[in-house]
Amino acid sequence: MLHFQPILYVVGLLLAIMAVGMCVPAAVDLYFGNRGWQAFATSAGLTLFIGIGLALTNHAPQIRLTIRQAFVLTTLSWFVLTIFAALPLSFSELNLSYTDAFFEAMSGVTTTGSTVIIGLDTAPPGVLLWRSMLQWLGGVGIVVMAIGVMPMLKVGGMQLFRTESSEKSEKAMPRVTQIVTAIVVIYLVLSAIWVVLYWAAGMGIFDAVIHTMTTLATGGFSSYDNSLAHFDNWRIDLVTTCGMFIGGLPFVLILKTAQGEKAALFRDSQVQAYVAVVVGLVLACAAFLWLRNGVEPVLALRHASFNLISVMTGTGYATSDFYRWGSFAVPLFFFAMFIGGCAGSTTCGMKIFRFQVLYAAARTQIRHLFHPHGVFIPYYNHRPIPPDVIESVLSFFFVFILCFALLAIGLGMLGLDYLTAISGAATAICNVGPGLGEIIGPAGNFSTLPDAAKWMLSAGMLLGRLELFTVIVMFSRTFWRG
Amino acid sequence: MLHFQPILYVVGLLLAIMAVGMCVPAAVDLYFGNRGWQAFATSAGLTLFIGIGLALTNHAPQIRLTIRQAFVLTTLSWFVLTIFAALPLSFSELNLSYTDAFFEAMSGVTTTGSTVIIGLDTAPPGVLLWRSMLQWLGGVGIVVMAIGVMPMLKVGGMQLFRTESSEKSEKAMPRVTQIVTAIVVIYLVLSAIWVVLYWAAGMGIFDAVIHTMTTLATGGFSSYDNSLAHFDNWRIDLVTTCGMFIGGLPFVLILKTAQGEKAALFRDSQVQAYVAVVVGLVLACAAFLWLRNGVEPVLALRHASFNLISVMTGTGYATSDFYRWGSFAVPLFFFAMFIGGCAGSTTCGMKIFRFQVLYAAARTQIRHLFHPHGVFIPYYNHRPIPPDVIESVLSFFFVFILCFALLAIGLGMLGLDYLTAISGAATAICNVGPGLGEIIGPAGNFSTLPDAAKWMLSAGMLLGRLELFTVIVMFSRTFWRG
Repeated sequence: MLHFQPILYVVGLLLAIMAVGMCVPAAVDLYFGNRGWQAFATSAGLTLFIGIGLALTNHAPQIRLTIRQAFVLTTLSWFVLTIFAALPLSFSELNLSYTDAFFEAMSGVTTTGSTVIIGLDTAPPGVLLWRSMLQWLGGVGIVVMAIGVMPMLKVGGMQLFRTESSEKSEKAMPRVTQIVTAIVVIYLVLSAIWVVLYWAAGMGIFDAVIHTMTTLATGGFSSYDNSLAHFDNWRIDLVTTCGMFIGGLPFVLILKTAQGEKAALFRDSQVQAYVAVVVGLVLACAAFLWLRNGVEPVLALRHASFNLISVMTGTGYATSDFYRWGSFAVPLFFFAMFIGGCAGSTTCGMKIFRFQVLYAAARTQIRHLFHPHGVFIPYYNHRPIPPDVIESVLSFFFVFILCFALLAIGLGMLGLDYLTAISGAATAICNVGPGLGEIIGPAGNFSTLPDAAKWMLSAGMLLGRLELFTVIVMFSRTFWRG
Repeated sequence: MLHFQPILYVVGLLLAIMAVGMCVPAAVDLYFGNRGWQAFATSAGLTLFIGIGLALTNHAPQIRLTIRQAFVLTTLSWFVLTIFAALPLSFSELNLSYTDAFFEAMSGVTTTGSTVIIGLDTAPPGVLLWRSMLQWLGGVGIVVMAIGVMPMLKVGGMQLFRTESSEKSEKAMPRVTQIVTAIVVIYLVLSAIWVVLYWAAGMGIFDAVIHTMTTLATGGFSSYDNSLAHFDNWRIDLVTTCGMFIGGLPFVLILKTAQGEKAALFRDSQVQAYVAVVVGLVLACAAFLWLRNGVEPVLALRHASFNLISVMTGTGYATSDFYRWGSFAVPLFFFAMFIGGCAGSTTCGMKIFRFQVLYAAARTQIRHLFHPHGVFIPYYNHRPIPPDVIESVLSFFFVFILCFALLAIGLGMLGLDYLTAISGAATAICNVGPGLGEIIGPAGNFSTLPDAAKWMLSAGMLLGRLELFTVIVMFSRTFWRG
């Protein structure tokens, strides 16, 4: 039997912390004289009550989790936090159904950025801030998990990033805490810098805060229905593009660089590949915009870099409806969704390192075909890849595509048209934000979808965010036995 | 250095045999008093001349191929045969450009079934027969290759089907020849039966021959623009459905069953999974047609089984435009394209056994995640799967999806709309035939695509038919060295 006590204790603590977080938008609404503060105060009270209740009744003096408990805790905490994070949205004056509020909250904590809210421009400031806070916290949460939890869970080849810092030994724990603290500091410093940059580029301070939180977390919520096209300001576009790009870098390496190891970022093969893919795709896209659509080169480069990095890192801001750029753009953006950024960043998707491992494995395979007696070893980051990592990553790829296909078929069965079903499934599982087409494309909105579709998409977002296997293991019968 | 002599010798022989084959449509055209016989006679002469020339100048008393020569021979023979198979089509009175003729011939030999010809109903009988013959020969060709060549090349996990019959030892060769002969006999017997069945169901004898050749080969060329909807006859639909289903079975097991091992087919786990997938998808599809579209149950079952088996086995006949069945059908048919039939059948796509291996591998992986010290072994057909097979199949899956994505992006860059680009890439690489949408859907035609798209699609068909790796190895620099 699995002991739920320590799990519920931690979930309770997290709920209590989130309840404190809800006081921030309440205070902002009060400051702006908006009645919305009541929704937040009520939700905070309820969340705090249940959180403290859970923590007290399941108090554990020392927390030592088994691997199975760690799986349950990870999935359960994201799920339960979302349930409560949705409360203030559903209590707010926007009159969202709980389904809509849950979808929006899940889209927030998973840093997806799909929205069901129409009329952001006139929404209460507390709601706008809360949505952004969810992405900001979800972003740093996933970075911390990528360092502290994922390498231990070994999902989808994440054990590649198991360093001395994530070993289970007694000595290692303080070191993990130290790294996590340092990364949170880095995240705060970057956020402060971006607020200033946005402000200097021409945003008001409130918009600057909101967009900073959703840029660095590669989340993509905006405070305007038109997303960043609202500003139509090249300096803001530039600040955003750089922010999203940084959100796709491994935060551990940003930390190392900040600590003086200048070359840490540039020597890493994942970062090199990330830069190469971004530059290649942006140039290809800009060239098409210029040569085929007649957009002048500088503007083409601005639009291409902004929108492509936005989609690839799974941010999901839009400055123009790339669905209308012409036939070349649509398949390109569609497949770019799946790429994602680096492991250990705030991005989702399959992530660059997995493609590097897949490529190395396929290459070895091919050589082996015509030299059956040769010995070929696939490398990643100048080191041989252990066989279990290769199998992990290959299985991850298969399960990712399978989940995407099943989700798309499910959405089709609910009556969504082909483009909406396929791109909706992709945008959810890759945590991007907008899909393709008229309905859920960059210029559209998820509010018109049927409720069942919203629940399915929410499940897809959670699956994608937790690297699939963290959730899927719990559907195995043997998981609950023995 | 690679010695081309034995390769060119075999290619020469194959060309000479094909030249003889060209005399059949020539004779038919002569019989019907159609001037088209001249195109075939000219092509036959040219092909025979070059074939015999190649064979004579590269005569090898005994053929012993290295593994690299086997790769080159496999790809080169399919490619060169297609080049010459296209000649009579381009010389015919249909006035096809050579690009169109090559596309049609490639679609034929790979048993894809995409067509660029408009006006099949009035096309010369020789051309109709030649297209069907290409599929029929391509179908038996791939079955023979799956027994004699693929297990040796070990592409994409095909070594699972390496039995005592495909060992390289001296003793084994006669046994392979024996099996291949028996399978060709089975193929001929099944063909004879199907001609009679089609005739009894109401087809003229010429149509019966043509459709038999493209049914059992899961090819999908028809002699009517409306494909089998031309007949609108439930008996013909039933004969076709059964024929396509049989085309998706492993021919070795059909042979064993015919030789008296009654349970050979039913005991095989791939066949069991194939039946389960077909029945499950057909019932789901029929239920939707009945409950949502209000089609009466029997008709729903007829349309669902015909069209779904047609797409899944990569045949590509159509009796109705499933693109218009509603939103549930489109993603379902799209993903069904990728499934395919059993290994050792005439079908393409990824094939059932690969999904079984992928599923077994993912399941083992998942259990291993929460029991890190447990020992879990994935099974296929009641036997443990060797690790190299798992890696082969997983790499195959990755490379398949990668090729599909690159092809779709390439087609998008040529200006094809999203649905045409995505479904065109899938239908080519899975050797299905029709795509989705207005242009290349079941009611459409490939003739309006730009030439570059036709060449890209032709390359996709060849890649898919030869299990990708057989072609891709040759793009490795090390292949040509050493």
